[in-house]
Amino acid sequence: MKYDILIENGLLLTMTEGLPVLEDGAVLIMGGEIVASGQSKEFSGYEVKTRINARKKIIMPGLINCHTHLPMSMFRGLADDLPLDVWLNEHIFPAEAKHVNPDSVEQWSCHSCKEMLLSGTTTCCDGYFHEAGVAKAILFSGMRAVAGQGVIDFPAPGVPDPKMNIRTAVEFVKEFKDISPLLYPSIFCHSPYTCSRQTLMAAKKAANDLGVLFQIHVAETKNEIDLIQGLGSMTIVEYLESLGILDSNTLMVHSVWISDNDIDIIKRVHANIAHCPESNMKLASGIAPVPKLIKAGIPVGLGTDGCASNNDHDLFSEMDTAAKLHKVALLDPCVMDARTTLKMATIEGAKAIGLEKITGSIERGKRADIILVNTDKPHVTPMYDPYSSLVYSAKSSDVDLVMVDGRILVQEGRLV
Amino acid sequence: MKYDILIENGLLLTMTEGLPVLEDGAVLIMGGEIVASGQSKEFSGYEVKTRINARKKIIMPGLINCHTHLPMSMFRGLADDLPLDVWLNEHIFPAEAKHVNPDSVEQWSCHSCKEMLLSGTTTCCDGYFHEAGVAKAILFSGMRAVAGQGVIDFPAPGVPDPKMNIRTAVEFVKEFKDISPLLYPSIFCHSPYTCSRQTLMAAKKAANDLGVLFQIHVAETKNEIDLIQGLGSMTIVEYLESLGILDSNTLMVHSVWISDNDIDIIKRVHANIAHCPESNMKLASGIAPVPKLIKAGIPVGLGTDGCASNNDHDLFSEMDTAAKLHKVALLDPCVMDARTTLKMATIEGAKAIGLEKITGSIERGKRADIILVNTDKPHVTPMYDPYSSLVYSAKSSDVDLVMVDGRILVQEGRLV
Repeated sequence: MKYDILIENGLLLTMTEGLPVLEDGAVLIMGGEIVASGQSKEFSGYEVKTRINARKKIIMPGLINCHTHLPMSMFRGLADDLPLDVWLNEHIFPAEAKHVNPDSVEQWSCHSCKEMLLSGTTTCCDGYFHEAGVAKAILFSGMRAVAGQGVIDFPAPGVPDPKMNIRTAVEFVKEFKDISPLLYPSIFCHSPYTCSRQTLMAAKKAANDLGVLFQIHVAETKNEIDLIQGLGSMTIVEYLESLGILDSNTLMVHSVWISDNDIDIIKRVHANIAHCPESNMKLASGIAPVPKLIKAGIPVGLGTDGCASNNDHDLFSEMDTAAKLHKVALLDPCVMDARTTLKMATIEGAKAIGLEKITGSIERGKRADIILVNTDKPHVTPMYDPYSSLVYSAKSSDVDLVMVDGRILVQEGRLV
Repeated sequence: MKYDILIENGLLLTMTEGLPVLEDGAVLIMGGEIVASGQSKEFSGYEVKTRINARKKIIMPGLINCHTHLPMSMFRGLADDLPLDVWLNEHIFPAEAKHVNPDSVEQWSCHSCKEMLLSGTTTCCDGYFHEAGVAKAILFSGMRAVAGQGVIDFPAPGVPDPKMNIRTAVEFVKEFKDISPLLYPSIFCHSPYTCSRQTLMAAKKAANDLGVLFQIHVAETKNEIDLIQGLGSMTIVEYLESLGILDSNTLMVHSVWISDNDIDIIKRVHANIAHCPESNMKLASGIAPVPKLIKAGIPVGLGTDGCASNNDHDLFSEMDTAAKLHKVALLDPCVMDARTTLKMATIEGAKAIGLEKITGSIERGKRADIILVNTDKPHVTPMYDPYSSLVYSAKSSDVDLVMVDGRILVQEGRLV
């Protein structure tokens, strides 16, 4: 039997239970699937079509970006260092009204996919408008992605009449549901302060009926709570739970301003979190209680957010920032250690978006979403612990090879 | 007349007053000195030995790292995510006792210089022991640097008898004072909690007598104040001022736990600050009141700190983190805007270490410490504002060319 690909002679981090480190590790791939991993010598007699030498490189799962708005790379750096309302109302919303159309969405989503692939991201979870354009770009790029059509109770790009917002999302999901095994359509409800309770409930019902991930921005800013009608004495999380929005198929993005009791609720209903530290820092939104969420056993993935508010799709810098931010916020250097942080960007991210049976770790039966990171560089030398090196020293530009579903998309740091 | 070098056709950021942006900019260099800058066409008829085409690149001053311990790259990632006392007493101090010697100091300082040059840093301000080894590495590398011999009231590498600490520092300064115009020896007093008031005063007097920069770690951690003998009701800054330690020739590193009154003192005595946000985050030391310091007109430079506590010498990621950290700490997205942050890493850093007449900006009469940053990459596209792009989107791996004192040390991203 002739296998497709053997990656060999690398330092293998599978990101599986116990976080083993295997020197001189190898991964065997057939039909886009991981069929085995172990030490290189175990596979010495195997016949393979393509051998990839990972000497002086780390072999690890591709990174998972749990929150993006891919087309917004067109607004990268358009307006920075401004109050949130000025930034949104005077810059981003007018720019969206002027420049966002199906063509620009597809073009800039392609651009974002290039950026993500070059920096070692193999899966993203997106939400925007004209999401069909995003989906087409993703299919073109070869990446794996959840793509969520936006739902909001205001006129939006491609959905001038808000009454059509849920129907548009449902049609998007139906159109893209069985097109590719790499694309997972979804419904992305903007937030509890821009959607009525009726919209929230109808969108969640539609997502459940279609069996797709429901995404929603939750408690991003401190004053968001004042913008929601009919909240009474409830917290935002209590409100969403009372509407039946929160379950294991819901991704709560940001979740900065949440209480200990909210964390108990999130744990009980098995909802998931996308943590976007750099966006929350740059927009001065606040610091999500991520160490508490992780301690509670809630799946927390890492996201960059859109390029207008970060301003990149770089999960290596996002990991570095996440690990350091929570340490200084809690004045505790032990929280968010390198292993916890790398899990957030891989297997925990996969759990958060419901793809943990498919990606997020290197193990038999999962799809081959794998990256090689070159550690033969001054800024990653010496290397006492590869987890520390990846989180605190490596850069996205050290990514040498990127494979999605067994297909090589980046080689020697360049798009194939 | 034939000039040495013309850098042309780039987007020129001089970092001079008013922060001009010059499209199709050029810099003319002769004998290592900047003799003119302007639009490329102004220099079209000039005879030059070397023309450098900066098309699709930003031409800007080299970055200035205001706080390093260069030999500590040997301990990069040796121990992370630990309480400060465990990290220091069980890992770093024993490792230093075992591995720090003149040879290892020189070797790993060379390594750090490579890392800094490749990431666009042209000047650093260092403090460690066996500093002669650091100085030799700096001279070998071609970088510009302040090199401070450490003074501490404990046995230290190369200074087993603390009674010799000041004499050793004085001898170091004398040995390296006039060796090279790129090397500025200095005295680095470890801290007010590891040096007695007699040592602090004697070290400062020695620095003043020799006319060199006096560096000292100040108020890095919250509990440092409890470790200082005889402080009474004074703050650490008040204590240091009472000893006559603080003046325009003093670099106060960290300065995290300082009061508004302390800031008034620092301003009045014209002392300078080195801000190390990533180190302060990773060690969970705290967040320095940098926006207040800058508002008071105090020169604040940016530093990475040693590689054991960061874990790299990357000023691009340090800028990104600095800009975002203070926004979230103050819940104000307007503080530490991109221009302020880039000034901190260039001209303000030069002021902080007393080299503002020599480096830190591109202007006639200054030495040619210049870098080119390649902006023809997906993660820096589009570019609405080059300051935003450099701080929030560019990576150190985008540095294409690095010149120190008119000598090209990095070309096409590789060491020459």
